[in-house]
Amino acid sequence: MTKNPNPPIVLASASPRRIELMQNLGLRFEIIPADIDEVTEHAQIPAEIVAELAYLKAKRVQEILQEKKSKLRLQPHVILAADTIVVLDGEVLGKPDNKEHAVEMLTRLSGTCHEVFTGVHVIHQSEGSTEAYHDVGMSKVFFRQLQKSEIESYVATKEPMDKAGAYALQGIGAFLVEKIEGCPSNIIGLPVPKTVALLRRCGLKVMGY
Amino acid sequence: MTKNPNPPIVLASASPRRIELMQNLGLRFEIIPADIDEVTEHAQIPAEIVAELAYLKAKRVQEILQEKKSKLRLQPHVILAADTIVVLDGEVLGKPDNKEHAVEMLTRLSGTCHEVFTGVHVIHQSEGSTEAYHDVGMSKVFFRQLQKSEIESYVATKEPMDKAGAYALQGIGAFLVEKIEGCPSNIIGLPVPKTVALLRRCGLKVMGY
Repeated sequence: MTKNPNPPIVLASASPRRIELMQNLGLRFEIIPADIDEVTEHAQIPAEIVAELAYLKAKRVQEILQEKKSKLRLQPHVILAADTIVVLDGEVLGKPDNKEHAVEMLTRLSGTCHEVFTGVHVIHQSEGSTEAYHDVGMSKVFFRQLQKSEIESYVATKEPMDKAGAYALQGIGAFLVEKIEGCPSNIIGLPVPKTVALLRRCGLKVMGY
Repeated sequence: MTKNPNPPIVLASASPRRIELMQNLGLRFEIIPADIDEVTEHAQIPAEIVAELAYLKAKRVQEILQEKKSKLRLQPHVILAADTIVVLDGEVLGKPDNKEHAVEMLTRLSGTCHEVFTGVHVIHQSEGSTEAYHDVGMSKVFFRQLQKSEIESYVATKEPMDKAGAYALQGIGAFLVEKIEGCPSNIIGLPVPKTVALLRRCGLKVMGY
């Protein structure tokens, strides 16, 4: 490995999936979860909702760096935030409130196609300037027709509980998914090619380029 | 967890990706890799090649059980085998021979769309009868236009070395893939919904059904 000339990166998310995707890129980063209410003020449509929430998360981490008087705020750094939602027939499905809610969501997703949107927002603070870039990914996911007992078995694994739409593509939930159209990492919670492109716009070197 | 009434399963593969996908289904299984030369006698087209290789792997494990006088051969059991190939413009890309070969494969895949075929073959040995079922999955994968330095950095991680087509969708290789069309687990090496369906045809209970 060559020496890393990149400024420090702060990932505004505690999601183990996002952390793993970032680690896979060989990037070193600090984790500061953005503790925001996931409510948008302006956004109306899915692509705008995830863009706004990713922006609010990045801004919140910028505030936290100030509040904590972190040394990072005084040196060049990059904040990376993402937000993912599942949309079925125009309705946003968030994380399930409880087991019954997870069963209800999965029953609705069974045998249909839904969309997954992930917004990514980066803030690059360098000496004397702040740049911000963002992008939104959309992927389609086609669920198999599910039996009631399959949904109940899946919910019993507890995997659905902290996931938008009540499933994880990369986990046990693989058995639910017949087909996808789009970027798989976007569904997992961080569209890797788009994220790499945003980090490179901030001047970072990622995977040798 | 309720008690498992399923017969023992033998997975004819040592692939960590296939093992993880099977574990995610909550299935217990023994691993006996099928040490076959991956050469087909009859198959001409990709779907036939993976079907024949999956069949040969399952048959080989059946032989191994006999050779080793395994107790399993005397009781009902299921053998599950799979084979995955990457196809670009009708040409089959196997595992790279060395780093240079991996760079060459990834350079060819850059900016293009290729197909991934996985064949699955199950043999269900029960008292007095043998059933066999098989299926083949196909997914399309669209690679980003890659820089030479990105390819070299990726090959330097060594991830490409034991993978058909010289990449892993679920690993570091996520940064290569713009989009897929089809079943993601099929690309990883075991199409989970198809595998579940084949195991259920053998009478097994998987994920509560």
